[in-house]
Amino acid sequence: MCVLFITTNKNKVEEAKAVLGMDVVQVDKEYPEIQGSSEEVVLFAMDILREGEPFIVEDTSLHIEALSGFPGPFASYVQKTIGNTGVLKLMEGVHNRAAFFETCIGLSYNGKKIFKGRCYGSIALEPRGISGFGFDPVFIPEGDERTFAEMSLHEKNLMSHRAVAFRALREHLENLI
Amino acid sequence: MCVLFITTNKNKVEEAKAVLGMDVVQVDKEYPEIQGSSEEVVLFAMDILREGEPFIVEDTSLHIEALSGFPGPFASYVQKTIGNTGVLKLMEGVHNRAAFFETCIGLSYNGKKIFKGRCYGSIALEPRGISGFGFDPVFIPEGDERTFAEMSLHEKNLMSHRAVAFRALREHLENLI
Repeated sequence: MCVLFITTNKNKVEEAKAVLGMDVVQVDKEYPEIQGSSEEVVLFAMDILREGEPFIVEDTSLHIEALSGFPGPFASYVQKTIGNTGVLKLMEGVHNRAAFFETCIGLSYNGKKIFKGRCYGSIALEPRGISGFGFDPVFIPEGDERTFAEMSLHEKNLMSHRAVAFRALREHLENLI
Repeated sequence: MCVLFITTNKNKVEEAKAVLGMDVVQVDKEYPEIQGSSEEVVLFAMDILREGEPFIVEDTSLHIEALSGFPGPFASYVQKTIGNTGVLKLMEGVHNRAAFFETCIGLSYNGKKIFKGRCYGSIALEPRGISGFGFDPVFIPEGDERTFAEMSLHEKNLMSHRAVAFRALREHLENLI
């Protein structure tokens, strides 16, 4: 079985491959994203994209409690502009460092189906580690003291938001076979 | 002549009325906005909205040079989450305070037409003034020492990005009559 994953982010493809245990082919293509929750982004993308089915799209948001949910679904834009440095500056002197990641995967195959995963944790005091991508160096998942960027892909996939969502997708796909 | 302005922001309607000098009727309705430039947001909105023509939509972005253009088209989301306090925190110790506002108006009437306005200026060291809305208390337009929030609506409309764009729209509409 082979799944087309429409994304410009090859890191996400690697994470998907490791969890799904099947062929994942990246379709490196941009598509319009609406300003809304990750679920809205993904549902809208499936309406617009008309690739050979089945295909998947994915959106991940980071919600920092003390910043009223910022950067939310605009995680990648915020990463490209103010980056981890900016987020840590916003968190200077802030005691409540609670945050969570949420991944929403959309599967387009005989209709649309949504799979979600969350990972609760906290924002580190300084960036640590070089693995992963995006906010990984500043996010410490609950139950661990390391940031995602201090873990191997295998370790990150044991607990990450994206892995939870991809495992739900895997289960669904296995039941289809 | 009467123009329908599809927006949830009544402050923008007041600014439009003052500049256009014609009836502006607010249609208080949300619509999907894509993650892109203000022009992309407006073009996309006109494709989706099917109101009785003519109608206008508007999008305004704030670009802070030292923050790689942040918050850009996500100005209203950033305003709702980290707010002016967050933006000032990001600018702490930053010498280059250059920024500009850009408004893009879309007119849907026998096709689509775009009108733009920019206002260059700088980010204040602290919020000042109570007029206007959004980032007005922290934006000082070039050639003035006051923030937009320290000006009357009339004074703001002499130089603001939104007023420049609405004057271009007014000129276009006057030529249609």
